Amino acid sequence: MDKQQLIDCHERIKPFIHNTPVLTSRLINKIVGAHLYFKCENFQRMGAFKMRGAVNAIMQLTKEQKQGGVVTHSSGNFAQALSLSALSLGVKAYIVMPSSAPEVKKEAVRSYGGILIECEPTLEARERESERIVKEKGATFIHPSNDDHVILGQGTACKELLELHPDLDYVITPVGGGGLIAGSALAAHYFGNDCKTIGGEPFEVDDAYRSLHSGKIETNTSTNTIADGLKTQLGDRNFPIIQKHVDEIVRVTEEEIVSAMQLIWERLKIVCEPSSAVALAAIFKRKEKLSNKKIGVLISGGNVDLSALPF
Amino acid sequence: MDKQQLIDCHERIKPFIHNTPVLTSRLINKIVGAHLYFKCENFQRMGAFKMRGAVNAIMQLTKEQKQGGVVTHSSGNFAQALSLSALSLGVKAYIVMPSSAPEVKKEAVRSYGGILIECEPTLEARERESERIVKEKGATFIHPSNDDHVILGQGTACKELLELHPDLDYVITPVGGGGLIAGSALAAHYFGNDCKTIGGEPFEVDDAYRSLHSGKIETNTSTNTIADGLKTQLGDRNFPIIQKHVDEIVRVTEEEIVSAMQLIWERLKIVCEPSSAVALAAIFKRKEKLSNKKIGVLISGGNVDLSALPF
Repeated sequence: MDKQQLIDCHERIKPFIHNTPVLTSRLINKIVGAHLYFKCENFQRMGAFKMRGAVNAIMQLTKEQKQGGVVTHSSGNFAQALSLSALSLGVKAYIVMPSSAPEVKKEAVRSYGGILIECEPTLEARERESERIVKEKGATFIHPSNDDHVILGQGTACKELLELHPDLDYVITPVGGGGLIAGSALAAHYFGNDCKTIGGEPFEVDDAYRSLHSGKIETNTSTNTIADGLKTQLGDRNFPIIQKHVDEIVRVTEEEIVSAMQLIWERLKIVCEPSSAVALAAIFKRKEKLSNKKIGVLISGGNVDLSALPF
Repeated sequence: MDKQQLIDCHERIKPFIHNTPVLTSRLINKIVGAHLYFKCENFQRMGAFKMRGAVNAIMQLTKEQKQGGVVTHSSGNFAQALSLSALSLGVKAYIVMPSSAPEVKKEAVRSYGGILIECEPTLEARERESERIVKEKGATFIHPSNDDHVILGQGTACKELLELHPDLDYVITPVGGGGLIAGSALAAHYFGNDCKTIGGEPFEVDDAYRSLHSGKIETNTSTNTIADGLKTQLGDRNFPIIQKHVDEIVRVTEEEIVSAMQLIWERLKIVCEPSSAVALAAIFKRKEKLSNKKIGVLISGGNVDLSALPF
């Protein structure tokens, strides 16, 4: 994926996304000993960066494909992102979700106009249902992260950040499926001035960390983390980009995630997901290396269940 | 207080405050049936609009007065605001606070360079201590809300909002001591285009509502509300302005406050105080009157104890 593709993608999706604000905190800078610029994708439409990739992926379809609609399986932010993107573009979105998913997530998809398809809570059932809809409705399957158009879309958040602050030394993002960090690493490479990309990942789902060390895609055997957005599996479209363009992946504990999340809420006065706090937690873990650097931090989203907060 | 005084005040304090962002939410607009513009003073320095009035009050002192420092009694946002303003202006700030106040509030004052003076938890003790410091240190007492310079400073938030959206039909603020609503009402009067001001007040501390109806300043016998910033008493500097320039004061229940607060957190993705939610709760209470109107909403602050949330 070259520089021009990222520029074209950004121009294409601009009418459908917010150029989200960048916040700073003197106190957090003092604690960390560096200059942090928080790119607040919690203020993005539907509350997360996922909107960017979803819009781009749908816009790349042919007229015929658009008529058949799109389908994905997700119980997270991508389900809402694809629903709202499809609604904005006049396309049908089928969302396959386990029947066991929380009612609030089902309702969010419906409120954005998505057509909810419930299935048994197994990966096999989800894939079978998705395939059925592809066949029966002529819908196009769109993967939440392992898709070049999705990766390009996610990269536009980092591109916007570098347009405001072209001299960042580092960009830090959380790592889940790998769409955000791969897109950000491409943007940092093409638009930064020697800007390096670092990923933050929970110890509990450290497939990207282990993959980077072994040289092949590793999987997670358990997903016991509060960072629910990062439980997904690294894919073969993201992994080569991460291998080529990511400086390192830093693992953090659950306690470090909660503590960073609390600092963001208390000092930036924003509601962010535990997944977003993983990036700040990684910075704390690398205080010496990052001392006095200018660092962009991707706040990935703000869709949190307020009745189940960790503090 | 005339228009020019408000303009001069704003120019004076600009280097020491943030012009805070204005957020909107399509979903909240849909629920309310009006167009809401949230002026986010939770992003103000030290986390609340109080910074504006505190800076202005200190800047109005003579050189001799500044040398003696300033003193106030508060365990809320004004304590932090006066401390940080004084620090920014090279002035000493003495903060009288009951010894029973939470350690986190004492620490916040110290972290902004305020000199903490603890006393017994009675109004009498607080006033006695303040007077002692005025006498012994030559400090100038600054009231958190019942002070013309403080009122003017608080009005600059609404002035900024009207600079962005000159055609607002209404501005809604919470009502506590009355500094914010009096300043906002002046700003709406001088800079709005027939822009009316409405106050939101908890039933539990409805001194302003009752004062407006009886024509004299009423007091609260109890202060049993979650909106801790609104427990303070209306003053004789604010009351005449409110009588002259405020359209009405709308009372809301504790349940309505919590429900509005949850909506703000979930949809705007910001951390705001219960006091701030009182303004949105008042809008829900006047849905018919406000139908389709353009409304500015003052989000007063974001200093919340995350370990004691109501949801």
